[in-house]
Amino acid sequence: MKSYRKELFFQVPTRRAFINITSQIETCLKESGIIEGFVLVNAMHITASVFINDDEPGLHSDYDNWLEHLAPHEPTNRYQHNLTGEDNADAHLKRQVMGREVVVAITEGHLDFGPWEQIFYGEFDGRRRKRVLVKIIGE
Amino acid sequence: MKSYRKELFFQVPTRRAFINITSQIETCLKESGIIEGFVLVNAMHITASVFINDDEPGLHSDYDNWLEHLAPHEPTNRYQHNLTGEDNADAHLKRQVMGREVVVAITEGHLDFGPWEQIFYGEFDGRRRKRVLVKIIGE
Amino acid sequence: MKSYRKELFFQVPTRRAFINITSQIETCLKESGIIEGFVLVNAMHITASVFINDDEPGLHSDYDNWLEHLAPHEPTNRYQHNLTGEDNADAHLKRQVMGREVVVAITEGHLDFGPWEQIFYGEFDGRRRKRVLVKIIGE
Repeated sequence: MKSYRKELFFQVPTRRAFINITSQIETCLKESGIIEGFVLVNAMHITASVFINDDEPGLHSDYDNWLEHLAPHEPTNRYQHNLTGEDNADAHLKRQVMGREVVVAITEGHLDFGPWEQIFYGEFDGRRRKRVLVKIIGE
Repeated sequence: MKSYRKELFFQVPTRRAFINITSQIETCLKESGIIEGFVLVNAMHITASVFINDDEPGLHSDYDNWLEHLAPHEPTNRYQHNLTGEDNADAHLKRQVMGREVVVAITEGHLDFGPWEQIFYGEFDGRRRKRVLVKIIGE
Repeated sequence: MKSYRKELFFQVPTRRAFINITSQIETCLKESGIIEGFVLVNAMHITASVFINDDEPGLHSDYDNWLEHLAPHEPTNRYQHNLTGEDNADAHLKRQVMGREVVVAITEGHLDFGPWEQIFYGEFDGRRRKRVLVKIIGE
């Protein structure tokens, strides 16, 4: 069994953003030399997400509006977590809806994807340097 | 390390449905000959889900009502994604709540499940042919 | 490839609770002797969750309030599942938001975590004995 590990770094200038990281994961896969196995891609921070969906700007706007409806940022004092001095409790909630991680099959050296699957980094508390972990196991 | 891959196909006549696919995954596991490892089961389409829960029709009706409350299908013009000509933005949102994928342990040649765990395909934009990927790694 | 399996048991005296199980997973990892691979940690019951987030009591209170808002326990007759004699339909919904499982990378014999990542058992229908599965594969 072979294994491969890499960290990807993101510094988003806004509080929230969705970034397509599919090509970066494909580069990792090539570097790994692994042709059959699984790749795990996860946010290393608990106010961010890695998820798979469509690369369509209207949909990303819909996600942003929907998450803000489900877990509003303001008023920040509605959340007990923010009594610690943080203002990002909503980001911890939004991340649970979108998920921490994805596991993707690797087949014949490629991400084994359906026609529209793309991997995204979802940032819900940006404006600082944060990390995503890419770990591949297989042979 | 051994690996196994199969696609399952679904054509649901309605917009939404939940289908128990546990026995199909067990068949894949037997075909693979793998006795210790992980199986990844994921929707290959971004308006569908694979999840684990209870095979109880009342609960499935509750899920359907609850998801429609969280992310209503109509009015379709509430979603920017639908400006592309689609009417399935709600399906992209519902799928995030229910999840894209499950990873299940394989122990002594069986799905290593608790007493009520069953694997479901969750369709949120049906009436066309769609796929689920089953990938098993182990030995 | 090596594999390791263990069940963890929980009997929560309340209906709902969040329990930090990170140190128990680290103990499993040491017992396994695996230094590179993946660990899968999943609830074996369908009204409970395993998820990764922050070990901060205010945030846990926020999660509890938020989940109760998204999927209220009462009135119990709002859910068809409860016509079976159960009163836990809300727990099946809450568990979908928080997720069934996590997959964590193992690197150099450690859980490959960001600065604040901790693993939690999320109970939504407690007051009885329930299980979590820990399965590790790697080498």
